[in-house]
Amino acid sequence: MANINENYLKLPGSYLFAEIAHRVAAYKEAHADADIIRLGIGDVTLPLPRVSIDAMHRAVDEMAEPATFRGYGPEQGYDFLIEAIRETNYRRRGISIDADEIFVSDGSKSDCGNIQEIFGTDCRVAVTDPVYPVYLDTNVMAGRTGALGADGRFAGVTYLPCTAENNFTPTLPTERVDMIYLCCPNNPTGTTLSRAALADWVAYARKNDAVILFDAAYAAYITEEDVPRSIYEIDGAKEVAIEFRSFSKTAGFTGTRCGYTVVPKALTGRAADGTRHPFNALWNRRHTTKFNGTAYIIQRAAAAIYTEEGQREIRDMIAYYMENARMIREGLAAVGLEAYGGINAPYIWLRTPDGMRSWDFFDKLLHEAHIVGTPGTGFGPCGEGYFRLTAFNSHENTARAVARFAQLK
Amino acid sequence: MANINENYLKLPGSYLFAEIAHRVAAYKEAHADADIIRLGIGDVTLPLPRVSIDAMHRAVDEMAEPATFRGYGPEQGYDFLIEAIRETNYRRRGISIDADEIFVSDGSKSDCGNIQEIFGTDCRVAVTDPVYPVYLDTNVMAGRTGALGADGRFAGVTYLPCTAENNFTPTLPTERVDMIYLCCPNNPTGTTLSRAALADWVAYARKNDAVILFDAAYAAYITEEDVPRSIYEIDGAKEVAIEFRSFSKTAGFTGTRCGYTVVPKALTGRAADGTRHPFNALWNRRHTTKFNGTAYIIQRAAAAIYTEEGQREIRDMIAYYMENARMIREGLAAVGLEAYGGINAPYIWLRTPDGMRSWDFFDKLLHEAHIVGTPGTGFGPCGEGYFRLTAFNSHENTARAVARFAQLK
Repeated sequence: MANINENYLKLPGSYLFAEIAHRVAAYKEAHADADIIRLGIGDVTLPLPRVSIDAMHRAVDEMAEPATFRGYGPEQGYDFLIEAIRETNYRRRGISIDADEIFVSDGSKSDCGNIQEIFGTDCRVAVTDPVYPVYLDTNVMAGRTGALGADGRFAGVTYLPCTAENNFTPTLPTERVDMIYLCCPNNPTGTTLSRAALADWVAYARKNDAVILFDAAYAAYITEEDVPRSIYEIDGAKEVAIEFRSFSKTAGFTGTRCGYTVVPKALTGRAADGTRHPFNALWNRRHTTKFNGTAYIIQRAAAAIYTEEGQREIRDMIAYYMENARMIREGLAAVGLEAYGGINAPYIWLRTPDGMRSWDFFDKLLHEAHIVGTPGTGFGPCGEGYFRLTAFNSHENTARAVARFAQLK
Repeated sequence: MANINENYLKLPGSYLFAEIAHRVAAYKEAHADADIIRLGIGDVTLPLPRVSIDAMHRAVDEMAEPATFRGYGPEQGYDFLIEAIRETNYRRRGISIDADEIFVSDGSKSDCGNIQEIFGTDCRVAVTDPVYPVYLDTNVMAGRTGALGADGRFAGVTYLPCTAENNFTPTLPTERVDMIYLCCPNNPTGTTLSRAALADWVAYARKNDAVILFDAAYAAYITEEDVPRSIYEIDGAKEVAIEFRSFSKTAGFTGTRCGYTVVPKALTGRAADGTRHPFNALWNRRHTTKFNGTAYIIQRAAAAIYTEEGQREIRDMIAYYMENARMIREGLAAVGLEAYGGINAPYIWLRTPDGMRSWDFFDKLLHEAHIVGTPGTGFGPCGEGYFRLTAFNSHENTARAVARFAQLK
C-alpha cells in the first residue's frame, strides 16, 4: 500500500501569483485599452552580461570536440568557479572559506529547499513573517510543523514578525529554536539587518546551539558600507551559519540557474547520543547523492562575472535596477506613502494608505493607476497592510509608473 | 539544539571509485610504463550532437538581447521540449502522455533521488541487488530503512537478487512492498526485462497498491524490438508507475544536465484516512517548491535531439558505443568468459572465472591485462563474483583491451 507523504496535505494551494494573474486578466478584459505596468515581477529583465555570453559560446564549442568535451564534473562544482567565488566574495572581504566548504548548485531555491534534509525532523524552525515561502513550505513537507491554523500560521513554527514597528529586525525568540532562516537583504521587504543585529543573532545561535540559514541572494544589491555582505563577516558565524548565494539577481541568471551554498566545516550538529557531526559532511553526502553537478557551460558563465570586466558589467546591471528602486522610493515619498527597502535591495515595501488591506490596495493600484504589484499578505500574516513593488522593469516604464503614483492621493 | 538527520550516519562511506582510483594509482607507481585502458567509466566520451551545439549557440545569443532574453521559465519545463518528448518518445510508440505529466529536470539522478520524498516514510522499499546506489541511499537518508547489517544489507529493505541463475529478472516478492525500483536496461548488469516480466511487475503493483519507480535512463540503447522502451507500453502501468528518462547517455549530456520524469495523473497513493491522492500533484508541488527549472539554453540543446537530424546524430553516437559493447561481449566469449548485457545497454556484466571474488578479479585484470573495470560487489552483495565493463571508451582502446583478454586465460 503506497502511502503518500501526508505532510504535503498541510500546504495550502499557492494561489498568490495565480490570483494576481486572474485579477489582471479580468481587469484587462473589461478595459482593453488600459496600459498596465508591472512592478510585481521578481524576475530580472536585462540580458546576461556580455562576459557570460562569450564564456558560454566558448564552452559550447569545447563541448563539440572530443579533446575538450566535458562529461560528469565534480558534483560540488569546478575549481575554476569555486576559486573565483572564494577570492572575490570572501577573501577580498577578509573572510577565509575553504574550497571544500563551497557547493555549487543549480540555484539558491534548490539549496534553500533541500538544506533542511540534513537536520533532524525534531528541530524547531524559526522564520520571519513576512517570508520567502520556500523556507517554510519545505519544512512543512518534511514534517517539522503541525497544521495550518486559521491565523495563517503553521503550528510548531516560531514566527518572527518583521514590521515597521521593529524596523524589520526580528526579535530574538524566547523559546528554543534550532533552525533560523534569515534573508538579508530581505525578500520581500527590501530591508537589511544591521551588523549589530546580525551579531546578536550569531550570539543567540552560539548560545543555543542553533543554526542560522542565511540567504544572501541579494547581497550584490547592498550599497551601504556598514551592511554585512556575508554572515561570515560576523565573528564566530562559521560555527553557527550556512550561507546561500545566487547568480540569479546578481548577474541575471534566473533562467540560467546557478548558485552556491557555503557550509563551514566548523559547523556541527548533535546526534541523539550527544556526539557532534559536521554539517559539511552531511551536505556533501546529500549533494553527491541527489545532485550531479551544474552544467559545465553554466559554470563557465558564472565564473566569467568574477573577471574585472564581469564585475563592471554586473555593477552596471545592478545600478540600472537600483536607479528604478530610487525612482519608486522617492515617488512614493513624494505622495506621502511610507516605504521601506529599495536602498540595499531591488524591492520596495510600502505601507498601504489608511490601513487599507493588501488586496484592496492591489485592486486600487490596478484600477486607478494601472500598476500591478504584490500584496504583502502573500508573504505571511504580518504582510497585511503592506505591498511589494520591484525594480526590475525598464527605466521608462518605472518612470511612467511613478508619475501615476500621484493619482493614488 | 540543532539535531542532525541521523539516518545519514547509517550510510557507509562511498569508497568504490575511490578504492579503484587508489589501486590504479598504486599499480602505476610501481609500473610507470603500464599502458592502462579504462573500461570502468560510466561516463560518455563523444562530444555533444552538432544539433545541440548549434541550438545552444542560438539560445546563448537569445540570452544576450533584451527582446529574447529568458528569465524564470516554467519549473516543469518549456512546452517546446515537453511537446518534443511527448511526440517522439511516447506518441510515436502509441503511448498518450499529457503535457502536465512530464517534468523536465537537471537530470535523472536528482529525480531518482528526490522522488521518494512524496511517499510516506512508512513505505517499504524494494530494490534489485545489484543496484544503482542512489535508489537505496536516498531511502536510507529519508529513514525508510534500519541499520546496515554485516551482510551488506539495510534492515527493513526488500532486496531482489538478480543473477545469472534467474536471468537477471527479479522474482516478485512474497512480502508486502510499496515502492519498487526497477532500472531497465539495467545499470550495472546491462540486461533488460522481457515484456512478460515487466507485465508481471505491473500486475503485482496493481494488485498490491505498490508503485514502480522505473528508471529508463538507458532506453535509447535498446536494439531488440520486443524489449519495452517505456513501462507505459504495458497496459495498466499508468496507474502504478513513475518513469525516469535522461539525456545523459542518450545524447551525451552527463556534463550538460537534463532529464525528465513522467508522473501519470492516474497514479494515486493513500493517506491514513483512506483517501487517495494523485502523486502528480504531490510531485508538481515538490518540483515547483524545491526546483526552479532547467536552464533555457540546456532545454534548447535537449529539444534539438528530437529533430530528424538530431535523431540521426544520437543513433550514430549510440551505435558507436554499442559497437564497443559488441567487441567486448564477443571478446569475452572468445576466451570462454560468461558475459551478460551489452546488447540493449552499454554495460557488460561478466562472471569472474573460477568463482574469483570481484576485487581479486579487479586486481588480476589490472595487473595482467592493464584494464580497469568495476567490481560487481560495488553494486550490492549479489554482485560478488561479477564484474562490470563499459562501452564508453574509443573503438581503438576497446579493441586493444579486447586483444588483451586472451592473457586472462
